[in-house]
Amino acid sequence: MNLQTLRNTYIKKVDETVKSFLESLDLAPHLQESLDYSYFAGGKRLRPLMLLSMIHAFNHEVEEGLHAAAALELIHTSSLIHDDLPAMDDDDYRRGKKTNHKVFGEATAILAGDSLLLDSFSLICNDERINDDIKIRLICELSECSGANGMVGGQKLDIENEYTKRSITIDELKTIHHHKTGKLLEFALVSGAIISKQSDDVIKTLKEVAYHIGIAYQIKDDILDIIGDESLIGKPVNSDHKNHKDTYVSLVGLEEAKKMLEFHYKNATTLIKTLNIQSGHILELFSIIINRNN
Amino acid sequence: MNLQTLRNTYIKKVDETVKSFLESLDLAPHLQESLDYSYFAGGKRLRPLMLLSMIHAFNHEVEEGLHAAAALELIHTSSLIHDDLPAMDDDDYRRGKKTNHKVFGEATAILAGDSLLLDSFSLICNDERINDDIKIRLICELSECSGANGMVGGQKLDIENEYTKRSITIDELKTIHHHKTGKLLEFALVSGAIISKQSDDVIKTLKEVAYHIGIAYQIKDDILDIIGDESLIGKPVNSDHKNHKDTYVSLVGLEEAKKMLEFHYKNATTLIKTLNIQSGHILELFSIIINRNN
Repeated sequence: MNLQTLRNTYIKKVDETVKSFLESLDLAPHLQESLDYSYFAGGKRLRPLMLLSMIHAFNHEVEEGLHAAAALELIHTSSLIHDDLPAMDDDDYRRGKKTNHKVFGEATAILAGDSLLLDSFSLICNDERINDDIKIRLICELSECSGANGMVGGQKLDIENEYTKRSITIDELKTIHHHKTGKLLEFALVSGAIISKQSDDVIKTLKEVAYHIGIAYQIKDDILDIIGDESLIGKPVNSDHKNHKDTYVSLVGLEEAKKMLEFHYKNATTLIKTLNIQSGHILELFSIIINRNN
Repeated sequence: MNLQTLRNTYIKKVDETVKSFLESLDLAPHLQESLDYSYFAGGKRLRPLMLLSMIHAFNHEVEEGLHAAAALELIHTSSLIHDDLPAMDDDDYRRGKKTNHKVFGEATAILAGDSLLLDSFSLICNDERINDDIKIRLICELSECSGANGMVGGQKLDIENEYTKRSITIDELKTIHHHKTGKLLEFALVSGAIISKQSDDVIKTLKEVAYHIGIAYQIKDDILDIIGDESLIGKPVNSDHKNHKDTYVSLVGLEEAKKMLEFHYKNATTLIKTLNIQSGHILELFSIIINRNN
């Protein structure tokens, strides 16, 4: 099964899992509508695909990752809804569509994000394919990768970077992005290994892989902000520069940033190869991340 | 052990559990500070006390409820931080102290609430006192009681009640409050029973109890909004009326609302008594709820 087939078969199942889950959240129809709107507003489903590809790499049953992949994408969706709020990045459009708060209002957008954070955990609890000990490990990882020491903490550091106007070091920038972006990628890789019953050593290696690919992802973002095609990225180029926000490019220049991207990409791929697994799909996804144009 | 002793002994332990947990969330110090600020800004710790009293009522080891009680209070704290935001209730003060966003800014308050929702689940996962099957049931209940079909969904319905200016029925009002207020009380009671390894029948009864005490709690709130002492409540009386918000008092009048309060309180206490447990502390808490002056 190649990556395209894996995507066509299983991402459809992830989306169906989310669809029927959202249909069950019917207490407040207007809230439900806003959840549906943001989840199905497009998106590459990169994180679920990475999780499922990881299970495939260990030659384990891919179906066992459907609920974890759905939960992961719901938390990612929540972070986008909240990041777009006026008090945060204040974005009116995402992927060419109006942001959640522009359509449903700020209060609903706040609550939509909250419910996605909370409800995603019951998706894992109610997964009939995996055992309780695996579920607990998944929930623990998801909570830690997404919370104050993970994605949310990274987002907070990123906001401080933007507002304090203090120039930060390259190491501080890496800390921000390792958490803001890398931690959910870490969950994708690590949860695939947990579901596939892999050793602690394998999980340790995957956390290092996630570190490098998270940084690489973000350096690519910064490069696209300078040299990208506005119509493809979906936001104005040079917006970070205009916001006086430190980026890899602003700190070390475009050429050095490209070298750093290559360095972290190479580290990620080299580490993955030490595991001696069917890593073809994972490597293809990493290549997509660093070669993307939006 | 009377209720006061239980409170003095175990609520202190819940707060210590939270304190050391928050100390571990040290990635973004400014975020950590804001979490600490809101959790330790006062509060009656009613929900944790109800959870621990429930375990005590089943003559089970109260210590086994510490992490669940801490997680519950963190989610409650998150809901207060987000409810106070300008896009929601727009409150500058809570319990006589400035609200989170007035001290730390809106962006931090949004992220503080998000991290509390997410991190609370790892508190339950990392509880060494209870088994995986119990943890999964607790996490499932917590997710469902707090998410789109629980507290957050109720909050969304409540906001619609406030903004649409459409007059609602008493049953619609009960649906709002059963979810907005009752569902976290349900988690307090039900999780106490799960930890104490009680039957599904007992849990079913406790869900009914939570329904009635949740409604009673809210009717009391509405009555205090009319006849309460501003200096004790911590917000202006008559604020619901001024906001054109339907309440039990506005829908059926003060005298009828008092009768409804008595009806639901009596149902809750009668149902608890059918369980033949050491329900003294729970009954005392219910009495505190309906007799409180703030």
